[in-house]
Amino acid sequence: MFISELKKRLGTDKVTQNETELYRHSKDESPHPPVEPDVVCFPENTEDVVTIVEIADQFGVNVTPYGAGSGLEGQAIPINKGISIDFERMNKVLDFSPEDLTVTVQPGITRMQLNDLINKHGLQFPIDPGADASVGGMVANNASGTTAVKYGSMRDQLLNLEIVLANGKVIRTGTRAKKSSSGYNLTGLFTGSEGTLGIVTEITLRLHGIPEHIIAARCTFDEIETCAAAATMILQSGIPVLRMELVDAQSIATVNAYGDYDIPVAHSLFFEFAGTKGGTEEEAATAEELMRELGCNGWETAGTSKERAQLWKARHEMSYAYSHTEGVVVAGGDVCVPISKLPEMVHLARELTDASGLKSGVFGHVGDGNFHTIIAFDPNNPEERARAEQANEALARRAIEVGGSCTGEHGVGLGKRQLQQAEHGEALEIMKQMKQMLDPKNLFNPGKIFP
Amino acid sequence: MFISELKKRLGTDKVTQNETELYRHSKDESPHPPVEPDVVCFPENTEDVVTIVEIADQFGVNVTPYGAGSGLEGQAIPINKGISIDFERMNKVLDFSPEDLTVTVQPGITRMQLNDLINKHGLQFPIDPGADASVGGMVANNASGTTAVKYGSMRDQLLNLEIVLANGKVIRTGTRAKKSSSGYNLTGLFTGSEGTLGIVTEITLRLHGIPEHIIAARCTFDEIETCAAAATMILQSGIPVLRMELVDAQSIATVNAYGDYDIPVAHSLFFEFAGTKGGTEEEAATAEELMRELGCNGWETAGTSKERAQLWKARHEMSYAYSHTEGVVVAGGDVCVPISKLPEMVHLARELTDASGLKSGVFGHVGDGNFHTIIAFDPNNPEERARAEQANEALARRAIEVGGSCTGEHGVGLGKRQLQQAEHGEALEIMKQMKQMLDPKNLFNPGKIFP
Repeated sequence: MFISELKKRLGTDKVTQNETELYRHSKDESPHPPVEPDVVCFPENTEDVVTIVEIADQFGVNVTPYGAGSGLEGQAIPINKGISIDFERMNKVLDFSPEDLTVTVQPGITRMQLNDLINKHGLQFPIDPGADASVGGMVANNASGTTAVKYGSMRDQLLNLEIVLANGKVIRTGTRAKKSSSGYNLTGLFTGSEGTLGIVTEITLRLHGIPEHIIAARCTFDEIETCAAAATMILQSGIPVLRMELVDAQSIATVNAYGDYDIPVAHSLFFEFAGTKGGTEEEAATAEELMRELGCNGWETAGTSKERAQLWKARHEMSYAYSHTEGVVVAGGDVCVPISKLPEMVHLARELTDASGLKSGVFGHVGDGNFHTIIAFDPNNPEERARAEQANEALARRAIEVGGSCTGEHGVGLGKRQLQQAEHGEALEIMKQMKQMLDPKNLFNPGKIFP
Repeated sequence: MFISELKKRLGTDKVTQNETELYRHSKDESPHPPVEPDVVCFPENTEDVVTIVEIADQFGVNVTPYGAGSGLEGQAIPINKGISIDFERMNKVLDFSPEDLTVTVQPGITRMQLNDLINKHGLQFPIDPGADASVGGMVANNASGTTAVKYGSMRDQLLNLEIVLANGKVIRTGTRAKKSSSGYNLTGLFTGSEGTLGIVTEITLRLHGIPEHIIAARCTFDEIETCAAAATMILQSGIPVLRMELVDAQSIATVNAYGDYDIPVAHSLFFEFAGTKGGTEEEAATAEELMRELGCNGWETAGTSKERAQLWKARHEMSYAYSHTEGVVVAGGDVCVPISKLPEMVHLARELTDASGLKSGVFGHVGDGNFHTIIAFDPNNPEERARAEQANEALARRAIEVGGSCTGEHGVGLGKRQLQQAEHGEALEIMKQMKQMLDPKNLFNPGKIFP
């Protein structure tokens, strides 16, 4: 059968049914129920991936790509079993052109591994979803995070993708030029398609210079809506920020307890300004003035890079802080709304999460209109799970009603499928036709995106 | 037949066979031979466009959208005749949300009309292809221009499109949120598809604040390759520019003669720096230092906004300066290459255009690796046309070989079709399948993009 064929054509060292490996590939960081694949493959190059796809096609077996397992919507869970493709051996830099500000990598490299290699050249890959995700996984979900307000999301970083299609053919979607008006934009289409249209085997990214100077700052407000309104004022006044994060008081208390931090417990805005020394100082001063006019409680800047690192470490641990309790998992909301809708939406988020009666927080990348809820529940208690999911779904449906999206950066996976019709309407039919056209046997990551 | 049906269902005032109108819709600003449509329609809303598409489908007649007629690759030429849809009456702002930094417009509004309405609110739509193109046309070609080095191309401005499909259904591709990871990226796919996949009837754009301060500057070099190398140094050193344009000495002499300017005749780099006063002064000073190290001949800044306007007026008139001679048209090259390839490519461009023996120039948006050739020829002299086209095609093929694109911003239209296989390889097959899927009767803008 297909597993012996995989072993025969790939070699036994690239194919495993080891129980630990099957379990490791059954889940991600979401609360979606785990499903083990039949087998895990570790391709070392594009040809190996083509071989896997050919065998999958021949035997009618499903294929689910797996990066770092840091997804939050179950994208890497092989719900129909079959083959998990783990890209950990495809983690090489294939071409680094500092003079072009581009790098071509295999999908298994993580964002921190990549930055370790390029930062010494004064360059960075700035997209920062928190977790040390694989670059391939970030392409699959159109990841973004704290720096998107300045650099955009993953789609904005991509110049070219190499893709293995379901028919075993290999295409390239772009070039190494910064822009193009040639042909249809396949790069953007495959980005965010969560492995349902093709399997990414090579990625060309644009890189950015490391800013000369960064200033971090923090201020707090009495009400969470005032925090959100203040964030919208920063955007409307055109002050460029590298990061602008809202964190509610509950989340600060939770992360303080988890990580032994002593961040003041209040609804807070965290900022970073980046650029030349003079420019960032001007920007931070203008922002401070604006925040004080809006009645913020104090304005503190983190002078040293150590202080800054501490601040962002706490921010990144927010989700773990909620989930670290034994017997608890967290359901994450991920809405993105027009900026002016932030105050009412953040208020609604706090109401809905409070009403759930579960431990919860509200925080996120308000510079993009994107914020998260996080609700901790006992996965073995179906009634708690339902309350958590209902709160997040109510928030997402309201986000769609006010002209926003049910997912700003986590992707659809298993958790946002039931919202696709509401968000996309008639366009969902076109998406289904594209899936049918590119993957007629539904081999690639089945059950994701589509309801 | 279909024309009487159009008149019956749309009303006679929206349908014309007036000879002047047929001629006006037979061409754009490219040297491609004109073809008159059978009829021109002037829809006033989405429903009118649906009606036109339904009639086109019923009678098997082709439909070609027409914006401002400023295209450079024949995209608006109805080569199979049929119906031209002119969007001049669909030029309204449907929603302007300064607090969200978004605007929703109909496709017929031009970029200058839009800026006239929003600039007073401190906001701008910054994409500047030179001509006063319609926003719909800019979506169709993924236009960009002088400011793309800072703001990206048209695709980067788009949050949502309303599209009439060939089956008469109307879809929306996005939301008003700044980012989304929900479903497939149809917004990016339809952008740049040149009206071959669907007809855009509504466009939601993100807007940008007008920079507080702008400094323009100019320097010259003895060799054109040194100009290009200097531009790459600016990018690699991370100095943010709003605009960075290369213009060769020939083009400056031509535009001086055309517009009665007195710009120094030499291979030149034109810059704009934008931001806070302090920031831009720092950036301009750093750039000046770098250019002087590289041996530039002088560094002049344009202090007043009138001087700046004069400078960019001259830049925008470059193409007209070549084509204004009676009996001459111009063929434009539009390659985009990795930044480090600029010096060799600009050198090759000068060699190829010189070898054509025709009056020609080399200039462009070198901040993106995108630059143009312009070659003037007698359209009634097939041998001259062949020499002009051969020079541009040789340059485009070399651009593809060095990892670039045959068109950075003008689009494929009729003029870059023969290069699609070389640039896209196996991916071209997928593009054809998408066309077949979305427009099985090949009703929409036939003969464009595909060879």
